[in-house]
Parts: sequence; structure tokens; C-alpha cells
Amino acid sequence: MLKLNELNKYFNKEVCIQGFVDKVRDLQYVQFLILRDGDDKIQVTIEKNEENERLNDIVSSLTLESTVKVSGKVLESPNVKLNGMEIIPTDIIVTSKSLEELPVNIQKKDATSRDTRLDYRFLDLRRSENYLLFKCQTLLEKAMRDYFVEKGYIEIHSPKISESNAESGAEQFKVDYFGKEASLVQSPQFYKQMGIASGLGSVFEVGAVYRAENSNTAVHATEFHGFDVEMGFINGVDDVMDEEEAWIKYFLKALKDEYEEQIQKTFKVDIPNLEVDFPRLTFDEVKEIMRTEYKYDAEKKDDLDSKEEKLICKYVKKKYDSDFVFVTNYPYSARSFYVMKDENGVTQTYDLLFRGVEITSGAQREHRPDILEKQIKEKELDPKDLDFYINFFRYGCPPHGGFGVGLERVMMCIFNIDNIREVEFVYRGPTRLTP
Amino acid sequence: MLKLNELNKYFNKEVCIQGFVDKVRDLQYVQFLILRDGDDKIQVTIEKNEENERLNDIVSSLTLESTVKVSGKVLESPNVKLNGMEIIPTDIIVTSKSLEELPVNIQKKDATSRDTRLDYRFLDLRRSENYLLFKCQTLLEKAMRDYFVEKGYIEIHSPKISESNAESGAEQFKVDYFGKEASLVQSPQFYKQMGIASGLGSVFEVGAVYRAENSNTAVHATEFHGFDVEMGFINGVDDVMDEEEAWIKYFLKALKDEYEEQIQKTFKVDIPNLEVDFPRLTFDEVKEIMRTEYKYDAEKKDDLDSKEEKLICKYVKKKYDSDFVFVTNYPYSARSFYVMKDENGVTQTYDLLFRGVEITSGAQREHRPDILEKQIKEKELDPKDLDFYINFFRYGCPPHGGFGVGLERVMMCIFNIDNIREVEFVYRGPTRLTP
Repeated sequence: MLKLNELNKYFNKEVCIQGFVDKVRDLQYVQFLILRDGDDKIQVTIEKNEENERLNDIVSSLTLESTVKVSGKVLESPNVKLNGMEIIPTDIIVTSKSLEELPVNIQKKDATSRDTRLDYRFLDLRRSENYLLFKCQTLLEKAMRDYFVEKGYIEIHSPKISESNAESGAEQFKVDYFGKEASLVQSPQFYKQMGIASGLGSVFEVGAVYRAENSNTAVHATEFHGFDVEMGFINGVDDVMDEEEAWIKYFLKALKDEYEEQIQKTFKVDIPNLEVDFPRLTFDEVKEIMRTEYKYDAEKKDDLDSKEEKLICKYVKKKYDSDFVFVTNYPYSARSFYVMKDENGVTQTYDLLFRGVEITSGAQREHRPDILEKQIKEKELDPKDLDFYINFFRYGCPPHGGFGVGLERVMMCIFNIDNIREVEFVYRGPTRLTP
Repeated sequence: MLKLNELNKYFNKEVCIQGFVDKVRDLQYVQFLILRDGDDKIQVTIEKNEENERLNDIVSSLTLESTVKVSGKVLESPNVKLNGMEIIPTDIIVTSKSLEELPVNIQKKDATSRDTRLDYRFLDLRRSENYLLFKCQTLLEKAMRDYFVEKGYIEIHSPKISESNAESGAEQFKVDYFGKEASLVQSPQFYKQMGIASGLGSVFEVGAVYRAENSNTAVHATEFHGFDVEMGFINGVDDVMDEEEAWIKYFLKALKDEYEEQIQKTFKVDIPNLEVDFPRLTFDEVKEIMRTEYKYDAEKKDDLDSKEEKLICKYVKKKYDSDFVFVTNYPYSARSFYVMKDENGVTQTYDLLFRGVEITSGAQREHRPDILEKQIKEKELDPKDLDFYINFFRYGCPPHGGFGVGLERVMMCIFNIDNIREVEFVYRGPTRLTP
């Protein structure tokens, strides 16, 4: 099928194209029909005369958002505002007919309530900013994967149905598995580490993540998508941060190269600064900066609250012109049993903050089974429940570390979108299971 | 971290490398330590002498499959069989220690039962043929996606938790969704069609597929992975077959270019012939060939049985030298309500067979809501249950069609592997929920 953005190669030729009916102007002597496919548009011009009577009738009775197939000649027409070209049709076939009234205003987002827009997500997605969003997401995901494939990482697909396990408990959805209780996996953490123990070198996975949290906030979804990475044979957590930083710069540069102008125009937002090293501050340094620079002494002592996350991002933006900052060495009490601690008990962990929001947790993992077992007990978990996991490390396992990002969270930060419902193809929340 | 396959750029330089202990030969005057990372190996050579006493002791006590970090100098050594190079170490650090006895023989697949291998999949995956398999799968998936991204398709991630719906019934896993019953989606069919109705042009999705079928066969899994494609603005089902054929040739060529030799050596199988057009035979023509060429009159009248699938593949291989064949226009009774029929009631459907196995079903879809409703009734389903789906087509929807392939099925066919358990990173079946 010929695409609308290829028509400039077909001047004075007969073509056959298809599109949604974006606009119709039915004037006294002429009809203008604007077709749309994705974010491309083309004008079809039909003079009103006896010869064109059949076409004139078809166009007169068209409803917006119907789809048509048009055969005709492409003309270069500098006086046509839309792309300086038009099609003079010899035939128009209506391939689908839209109802007259749409339940969603696809020109003006705010004219329809969010709930109605989600009910009719297939109409909401026709808004041009949404097409751009999903075009950008497609490119971002490709760049995200390309980076790792190029470096010899293996792509895995780990199971999402599993025996219920100790780590997550109440926040897992339960599945009736042939009469037995199973759970939807909350994170590919254990499986990507299994990939390392499997001798696959380094691995990544793009997959669904399930959280049975009854939270109806702007940032929670019960089903979202994670990009998870695990690196084998590292020398320390700095290797993990180096890789993540290079990766982020790679995929943001790909986005910038292709869509910077469109993004600025549509979303009024700049691509982050890719020219600086992401600053790396320890957790203690951040707390110190809070006290000295902002006179802020948060209640949480072993983690950063959202105010601190915003302030430290402001601080590094001003001081280093960086949109990102790594905060390292979080207290062990705020981290999982599987992180590595150095000989002084300092965790080999980090969070990556982007424009005030935490988008990643990363760490070197503890790969020595005896120490892992000790840490499991420290966290008051039962090593028996995690024996299948400890087992991964009993037959040799490379030192390794990794990180994960939520795709939707990253999209929200890049495009400055304030609600996860607007970046999901189809959103799932506690009270939304449709469409 | 320096990779083992980059060492030939570091002759006479000091390096630091890591790997699994693949072999140790502890001789009277010298020790040979073979390290492995993925499918790369390197020899570390340690003379036995007083100066090396500490290193000699470390190597003597190494267990196979432990991991080590080695610092030393890379020498070009034509007399070393393995890559003509070796490392003379200044230090060896044991980064993880394997138990002496492995429950899986990672040299000889058949020395361990399949169930034990699946229990210890992380050890089973260390077999070199498995590393090659997942390396190839990574490349295949990249090529599969690249083809469509290049052509402007949008990548989607549709939800896998949904309201229970009419199409699939008993074969869906039930999920406890905050006290309400939901289901795991069996196929992204409705959602990829929603992508078309959403004006996204054409879409694809790589995602998990769930089947609550209590089948313990060599080809069934309860969780596997589909590559699903839906094309908008098509002129007919031939457009869909053209696209799928070009796509398959694209990703198989990518595989051939990179790994043909390794695949032939390891799996004793050739990459399919990519030089011929895939023959397209109607369902009726296939039945006719069965009768005339093979005197075979199958019991099934509205579908092909597995013997017919094998025979017709044999037939086209002999006649056209093609490893693939499209069988078109299946009887409506064997197809779903959503396929399009032409004015004579002939379905615009096809299956693609590859080396005797069906790997795809494809079709043009019925996008006209009134006819869709009629077909739903013909199939004795209740249009009310499917109203959310019919709704996708009430506000204009481009003529469209698509197909889906099971990634595991394709892997099995390409590599001539007879059991789906051998191609899954982690297999899930009715009696297997671990690891």
C-alpha cells in the first residue's frame, strides 16, 4: 500500500491511496477532502460538475473518521497549503463508515473526560499527539534493545506465571493454575539473575510487570512494562552505572536525532542534556546537601522522600547542568536482601533520578550463596522459601549486577506527561479491566 | 569488562578477564586452566614453580564451573590449539565456587533426564548448543522487529489481564483481580485490531500468550511467546501474505548471514531456501493434490490434518524447492467469526506451513460492524459479549489483516528441535511451575 508520505515521488502519476476522512469542505464549486494516515495528511480535490456527480455525492455524504480508498492523479500544487500537492480522483470507495457522532473529541483532549477517553481508547489514540507518542516509543524501544544486542547481551523472556514466592507476597495477583494457586511474577529479578547463572553472559528482558496494589494514583498501574538488564562478570556497581548511563544517552540521542523538533512542538519539552556525565552522589552526600543547601531534614532516614528527589535533581541541574543524577550506597534497611554489601557493610546500590523522579534501582547482587543466606535471615525471611533462588548460585555464578526501568515511567519523564494512563496503549488499574 | 573474543587485540598487554572454569589440566610441570564466557574460551597457562606457588595452589583446588578473575599478559602462541593464544597470569581470584558435583551433565545432554535438566535449567543452559540457540534467538527477534520498525509499524504492548470474554472460555487462566474474576488473555488478536482502529497505521507486538490447556505434549506450553502483526489499509489478504513472506526471508537471511556455519555444525540443519517464492495453494487445491498424488482422503473435511500438512510440504519441496507453503481460503467452519469472506463466501484466510508444521494463521479481518455482528451470530456466539470488540469498528476502521507466529514454534522448526521445553528459557506446563 502506498503511504501518504511517499506521494511526492508520484507527481503526475496515477496512484491508489487510503486514509481516514480527517476533514471535508464542501463548497459551491469544489470539494476538499483531507485524508489522514498516522500523522500524514493529503488533500483530495474534487470539482463539482456533471462528470464528477457520483464522486461529489460520495463526498457529500461522508462522515468524518470514515475510511476511504482514492484512485487518482497526484499533482504538485504549490498553492495547496497542505504539502503543496493534491490528488485529483477518478474514484473514491468508502471502505468503512463512521457513526456521525464520536463519543470522544479527537481534536481537543480536554473536551472529553479521561474516563470516557479510556473507555474509547481506540478513538483517544487517534489524537495526533498520541500517534507521535507511540511512534517515539517504538523508536525508543528499538534503540534500547539495539544497544544491548550490539554488545552481545542475550534477550530473554522469563515466565510470568510462577509458584507463589516469598519476596512479594500480598502484592502478587493469584492465578488458578489447574486447581493449584500460582502467582503473576512482579519482577524478572530472579530470572534475569538465573540468566547470569546460566552462563548467558549478560541478559535483558522487555516484559510485563504485575502489581496487585490497590492504588489509583497517577503513577500506578497493575500491569506495566519493564526493561530489565543484568550484566555478568562485572568488577563492581560502577560498571552497572557506566552501562546504564551510556545506554540512556544512546536511546535519547536516537530520539533526539529523529524527533526532537516534533517533540518540542507538540509536548513543549526538551530532550535532556546528553553532553554531561551524570553526577554520582552517595546517599549520605545527598542528605548532607539537603541539610546545608536546603535546610531540609526529612523524616525518612534510610531513603529519600519525593521532596528530596526533586531538590537533588534541581541541585545537579544547576550545578552540573545534568537532568540525571545517580544516588549511590543506600542504607541496607531500604534495600532487598539480594544486594551486595562491601566489607564495611556499605550497599553496592543506586537509584537513578531523572527530572525529580526515580526511574531506576540498580545494584551489584550478592552472588555468594552463604552470604546470601545470611542476608535472607537478616531480613527475617525464611531461606527455605528462597532455596530455589539460592540454588542458582551454588554451582558457580559470575559477579553480576543490573537495573530495571519502567517503560511508562521513562515515557512520562521524557515527554513530561503527568499520568500513566496517557502513556499506556491500554491502561490497567484496580478499577479498570476494559477495553 | 574485556570480552574473551577481544583478546587478540591485546597481545603482549596486561589484561584482566573473567570466566567460568571450563577445564583444568594439572600436569607435573604446568597447569592449563580453560576459561569460558558464552561460547568463547581462552587458555590460561601457569608454570609450576616456586614463584607461582600461590597461583598453583588456587588452580589445584578449583572446582569446574566456578568463576575466576585472571590478571595477566596475553601471548600469541601458535602452538596453543585454542585460538593460538594464552594468558600468563600474575593473579587469579576465585569469584564464585561451584559445588564439586553437578546435578546436570553440561557436556552431554542425554546423560541427564529432561526433568532434571528442567529442574536445573540454569545448568542445562550452560551447554554450548543452548548458548548458540539463545544467541540466534536474540538475533532473530531483532531482525523480526527491525523489519517492521523500518516500515513504520508501531510496536504495542497490549494488556494480558482482561475481563473474561467470549472467544476463548475454558482455555483461559483465571486471575483473582481484587476479588473480581479476570482472565489472562490468550492472544492479542482483539488488541492488535484495536491498534488499527486507533489510527496507528500498522502494528506489531511481541508478548506472552497464555493457554490453560492441560496438554503435556512436545509442542504445548501454558505460557509461550507470540510475534503478532496487523496491517492497516490493505487491499486484500494477498498483501498480508506478501508482507509475511518478505518478513520471513528478511529474518532468516539475517540468521544465515551471521550464524549459518555454526548452526549447520551444531544442529545439523540447513537454513531454508530463501531464493524461491513461497507457493500459494488454495485449501481445495491441497485436498485435490492429496487425492491425486497421495491417494489420501483425510477424515477432516474443513481442515488439514498433520499428515496432510507433512505431505503438502513434501510436495512443494519437491516441486518448487520451497520449505514454505501458503494454504489459502480455508472453509469458514474451521475459522473464527472475525475473518473476512468475499462476495462468494470464500474466506480470506491462510495458514503458512514450514517443513511440515503450521507456523502461522493469517487473514483479512471483517471490519464492517454489521457483517461482523452477522458472523458472530452465525457462529452461535452472543454479540452482546463481543460488543466492546464490535465497537472498535463503528467509528471508521481501515480494511486490515494480519498474522501471528509462535516464537518457540518457529525456533523449533528452524533448528529442528522436537520439544518446546528445549527452546523456552524457562518452560511452563500443566505440571511445571518451577524454577
